[in-house]
Amino acid sequence: MAKINAYTTTAPSGGIKYQQVDIKESPGNVSLKPLMTGICGTDRGIVRGSLSFAYDPEGYDFLVIGHESLCVVTDSSSPRFKKGDHVVPIVRRPGDCPNCRIGRPDNCSDGKKHEAGITGLHGFMRESFNEFDYNLVKVNDTDLGDVAVLTEPMKNVVKAFEVFDRVRSRFIFENVYSTFDGKNALIIGSGNEAFLYSFLAKDYGFNTHMINRHPIGMVPTDLCESFGVDFIDSSKEPDFPEDFKLDLIVDTSGDPEAIFRYLRKMSHNGVLILFGTNGKAPATPVSGEDIDFMVERNITIAGSVDAAEIHYLKALDYLSKWNRLHGGLMKKMITNVFQPGEVGLFTTKPEGEIKSVIKWN
Amino acid sequence: MAKINAYTTTAPSGGIKYQQVDIKESPGNVSLKPLMTGICGTDRGIVRGSLSFAYDPEGYDFLVIGHESLCVVTDSSSPRFKKGDHVVPIVRRPGDCPNCRIGRPDNCSDGKKHEAGITGLHGFMRESFNEFDYNLVKVNDTDLGDVAVLTEPMKNVVKAFEVFDRVRSRFIFENVYSTFDGKNALIIGSGNEAFLYSFLAKDYGFNTHMINRHPIGMVPTDLCESFGVDFIDSSKEPDFPEDFKLDLIVDTSGDPEAIFRYLRKMSHNGVLILFGTNGKAPATPVSGEDIDFMVERNITIAGSVDAAEIHYLKALDYLSKWNRLHGGLMKKMITNVFQPGEVGLFTTKPEGEIKSVIKWN
Amino acid sequence: MAKINAYTTTAPSGGIKYQQVDIKESPGNVSLKPLMTGICGTDRGIVRGSLSFAYDPEGYDFLVIGHESLCVVTDSSSPRFKKGDHVVPIVRRPGDCPNCRIGRPDNCSDGKKHEAGITGLHGFMRESFNEFDYNLVKVNDTDLGDVAVLTEPMKNVVKAFEVFDRVRSRFIFENVYSTFDGKNALIIGSGNEAFLYSFLAKDYGFNTHMINRHPIGMVPTDLCESFGVDFIDSSKEPDFPEDFKLDLIVDTSGDPEAIFRYLRKMSHNGVLILFGTNGKAPATPVSGEDIDFMVERNITIAGSVDAAEIHYLKALDYLSKWNRLHGGLMKKMITNVFQPGEVGLFTTKPEGEIKSVIKWN
Amino acid sequence: MAKINAYTTTAPSGGIKYQQVDIKESPGNVSLKPLMTGICGTDRGIVRGSLSFAYDPEGYDFLVIGHESLCVVTDSSSPRFKKGDHVVPIVRRPGDCPNCRIGRPDNCSDGKKHEAGITGLHGFMRESFNEFDYNLVKVNDTDLGDVAVLTEPMKNVVKAFEVFDRVRSRFIFENVYSTFDGKNALIIGSGNEAFLYSFLAKDYGFNTHMINRHPIGMVPTDLCESFGVDFIDSSKEPDFPEDFKLDLIVDTSGDPEAIFRYLRKMSHNGVLILFGTNGKAPATPVSGEDIDFMVERNITIAGSVDAAEIHYLKALDYLSKWNRLHGGLMKKMITNVFQPGEVGLFTTKPEGEIKSVIKWN
Repeated sequence: MAKINAYTTTAPSGGIKYQQVDIKESPGNVSLKPLMTGICGTDRGIVRGSLSFAYDPEGYDFLVIGHESLCVVTDSSSPRFKKGDHVVPIVRRPGDCPNCRIGRPDNCSDGKKHEAGITGLHGFMRESFNEFDYNLVKVNDTDLGDVAVLTEPMKNVVKAFEVFDRVRSRFIFENVYSTFDGKNALIIGSGNEAFLYSFLAKDYGFNTHMINRHPIGMVPTDLCESFGVDFIDSSKEPDFPEDFKLDLIVDTSGDPEAIFRYLRKMSHNGVLILFGTNGKAPATPVSGEDIDFMVERNITIAGSVDAAEIHYLKALDYLSKWNRLHGGLMKKMITNVFQPGEVGLFTTKPEGEIKSVIKWN
Repeated sequence: MAKINAYTTTAPSGGIKYQQVDIKESPGNVSLKPLMTGICGTDRGIVRGSLSFAYDPEGYDFLVIGHESLCVVTDSSSPRFKKGDHVVPIVRRPGDCPNCRIGRPDNCSDGKKHEAGITGLHGFMRESFNEFDYNLVKVNDTDLGDVAVLTEPMKNVVKAFEVFDRVRSRFIFENVYSTFDGKNALIIGSGNEAFLYSFLAKDYGFNTHMINRHPIGMVPTDLCESFGVDFIDSSKEPDFPEDFKLDLIVDTSGDPEAIFRYLRKMSHNGVLILFGTNGKAPATPVSGEDIDFMVERNITIAGSVDAAEIHYLKALDYLSKWNRLHGGLMKKMITNVFQPGEVGLFTTKPEGEIKSVIKWN
Repeated sequence: MAKINAYTTTAPSGGIKYQQVDIKESPGNVSLKPLMTGICGTDRGIVRGSLSFAYDPEGYDFLVIGHESLCVVTDSSSPRFKKGDHVVPIVRRPGDCPNCRIGRPDNCSDGKKHEAGITGLHGFMRESFNEFDYNLVKVNDTDLGDVAVLTEPMKNVVKAFEVFDRVRSRFIFENVYSTFDGKNALIIGSGNEAFLYSFLAKDYGFNTHMINRHPIGMVPTDLCESFGVDFIDSSKEPDFPEDFKLDLIVDTSGDPEAIFRYLRKMSHNGVLILFGTNGKAPATPVSGEDIDFMVERNITIAGSVDAAEIHYLKALDYLSKWNRLHGGLMKKMITNVFQPGEVGLFTTKPEGEIKSVIKWN
Repeated sequence: MAKINAYTTTAPSGGIKYQQVDIKESPGNVSLKPLMTGICGTDRGIVRGSLSFAYDPEGYDFLVIGHESLCVVTDSSSPRFKKGDHVVPIVRRPGDCPNCRIGRPDNCSDGKKHEAGITGLHGFMRESFNEFDYNLVKVNDTDLGDVAVLTEPMKNVVKAFEVFDRVRSRFIFENVYSTFDGKNALIIGSGNEAFLYSFLAKDYGFNTHMINRHPIGMVPTDLCESFGVDFIDSSKEPDFPEDFKLDLIVDTSGDPEAIFRYLRKMSHNGVLILFGTNGKAPATPVSGEDIDFMVERNITIAGSVDAAEIHYLKALDYLSKWNRLHGGLMKKMITNVFQPGEVGLFTTKPEGEIKSVIKWN
């Protein structure tokens, strides 16, 4: 394989370069070019050198970064894909634990899976690469366009709700009419995944609230209005009345203080999904009374990371549905578009960002 | 109904008296006398006045305490029970939420259930009372004897493992041979419920460890040996080697510091059951890295309180099995026996206590 | 209440009239007029007098028929609905069994539920009636239009797939990539519900086949093509090659011969959903080898009837999605439109019918 | 390996010999001798030549028969077993399907697993053989003695109840008190597995009935009495009153006529487990009304075959418990003991047989 341009880092020490690289091995029966690649907190964490678990692929002193990607097939010897197809490559690759063996490396039991662009496997921010067909998900809805770049973050949301569905099977979570009517969900944070979690919570039938410590811009406001999500700027208004109870919380902030503050607002049988990570977030005290609260109310807290192929498929399905139901609004979630070569977006979060992407040619 | 002797408190302010009381209403089609009543941390908490959720029954300025009980039927107009039957009365009584409606007040969605001896309903530490047959569980194994007084604490253990089974359905928890072989469980604490949790963890096939900050006596040591549970006195020995991983933790201490210390030893897909409560336990800091740890490993934390009739039945089954398999050892869990009228046991935990009971005549 | 026009039968003896009736009681805080009511095999069975379980409401010598309905709110004292809202009324009303108590009368344990237009409760084919808000589901997607009349049949499909999801939790049904890719579904029949089942099977990711003993018309062909469903006219072509295996079968025919014929084509871990009913269908022999086949392959057969409010909500969601994704095709499922007063449609199935409806003014 | 004596057949044509065989390969790190081997309907079916799916191991023109076995370790290089340990070898060995990959070859998705003594793998009726430790389950309860030879049939029962628990999660199967009180189970048949199913049904809390077309002897009668199982000889007495309803049926007969006869006695939400196989059993007609019955009542039918290691472990647990609770009765289930070399038991079922075994020296 000839030299190609790629965004690289050195894991776990960090840094970011757009440079020509020579990647000897890129096995796979489908050839790809990226159309659009998204960046997220994990990418910025790797570049900042703050994610100790990241590491370079064996035999390389660099790591091609990038795991959120929408690609086009340039060549294929697989019957499942043909030139011109839009595809999303899967991030995690299985090891040999029981969960990996059944296509659920998102639930890897021993940590021996790999993640493209993160742990020991080159990522997707490079001019071209090959993949095996079983690591690719096809975008069937041609109207979806660029919105398909949100498949990777959305798949996490789908898996987290699967986790919610499983853990809540410990009791009857629904009301006496079999629905979620009257149940309250809170999504902590206002990044792209906070929005996607809010939208899915609405789909479930929750009264859905999104909360953050600062105001949101016009695009987020339009999104919230169109989807019927209630946004709360906790820096300005008291968040909830005294007797208000939460049934579901999804945290996308990774901030212990916020997590435990809202946990104390939970109703009996409440479920808290931990999704956001921020290793540098300051600690918060958790008291004996907090433990008591969780015990007496049968509270469940579930960490949820990554997702499997089935969730990519459902993610595309949700994006497609919302894209049609809410006009062009979903597309506006892509707030900042960069050119290949630009590196500032990896170190500075642009003002008003919901999702920043690199648009490849 | 004539005056009878009873242990009473005033909830939630506390105190304990053994006195004659006049309880006008004791509805039910089965008449009972207690044979043996156990006391636990909740009873002591109520007496100490530290459980704010406790309250007297409507129309009374006192609360008969006691929810762990083994009784004998003295009269019955129910076809399900006859004079001389040994029975265990159920603690929680349903409200009208979806869970209460299906006999699962242990999973009450709105907190409107009642608990005998705790919240708005007279308990079982009185010379006699009536109950409806549907609130009673029969002890069929006559060899069980006094050990049946452990049914109430054991039923909590059975329910907590039901919770474990439900929440772990989010992934394949077992090894590649469908068993728990090679999986490690840790039970924090060394009270009677810590032992019961350890025994059930062994039954599941876990390498089972029990940990506490002080040494245990001869009876506990014999129990641990007979059941194959590994006891660790964390005041003397380092608890676990660096690379040791826990798959299941059950906390019976309510101590945040211990809980989060061992949480950080969890393997991927680890499950932590919160069962112990100690509102006065000092707070511990929970950091961004802790949250990160829980997310990246798909950790689940589940509070679990009380249990339903089905768990009382299974509790009796386990006690019966263990009683036969481990000779007279189960009986030795009843370490301290008191007479009706003695009140010191409510304020001072006897040395070497696993379970203290009052033996009624 | 004044006299109104209604379609009535006498249950279970049958017959059909469009006549003025005097229904004294029509309790409820929302007043409704039907916009469109669908008819199905159950309606025709009642009219034919062949459904022995149907019965008139207490105090009436007739039964207003009709359970598939799209209505408009004409007046409301409920905060949940306002004049002009389009709603779908729920068919089943709970008794007091555990399933009814949690809003799941579709899973009624003792048969003491009621069904509007079928068992002891007046149905929806009348000029006006009242309902309580908790028996109504709102149509939020205004683009859905008449397609919303399919909500009632679609809700059965949603529930049946819930049943499929539950029973298949006994093993890993998915392939080693966590998806349904490569799995084959067969829907037996070609009525409106066969189409809806096929569409949902496609959504799950099944290679989906629909089979019947006669050719289908142009509309059905267009629907199959647009959704990617493979239609097989078993009167003309051999149905499946020798080594072809089915993973999911849904029967909408109620015909034992067809059911067991295709059952014998099932793969290991196959799931057969029984949905269609036809009491008059001739019997088919089931042999010891058939039983052996089901045992050795861990086959599951699950009857599924009716659905709960949550399924109505999801049904609307699917209809809305498919309506947008497949242009005006969904609307074409309403093949035959009749005026109030016409009664022939109850006794004669129109040529080429997918769904026949009565359009109210 | 030297020549050893073994019971052999030629699969699938049948026959039975006790002869010296030369088995070159018997890989494994544990050496075993059989103590007792049970025979069952499958063995007799293979010998009769009526099980077409049986086949000889590759490279052999015979198959060592036998899959129910209790063995003693004669030598071991595995840390998990030592000389003198009693063990039960596992029957099925995994292929590469998703279920096999996680230690559930009992749920094999593609039929590519192997079964010792049945399909392509030599069985356990030979003087000695080797096994890998991961194919062996240790008998820890030394009081169990010969009863441990029932582990293999009992593991099927444990798995079948797991299937019951999974499929019944589609609704609330329990009563409004969370228990099985008032629920009726019927076990069809009176072989050893019928007894084991009855005992486990009692453990669940079912009113348990066992039915067969002929009277049972004294041992079965004692077993039924001790366990509280109601035996019905359907040749003499009418089986159930008109209004009697069954909630769970387990068939061990494989007889379609009996299966569908009792199916028609099922309550709403009834579950029928198919376990018995008898390919030669005559066919029975299944009508449109039968299908209707299953649909309207949400009936579930589940074939269940074999079991995984976890079920062997639980099987030993149940046998141990019942052995202690019911004195020497469990041992009496071994009704007929033969010497190595005797072959008549493979072709003629002894009078009064519950379980026939060969006792090795």
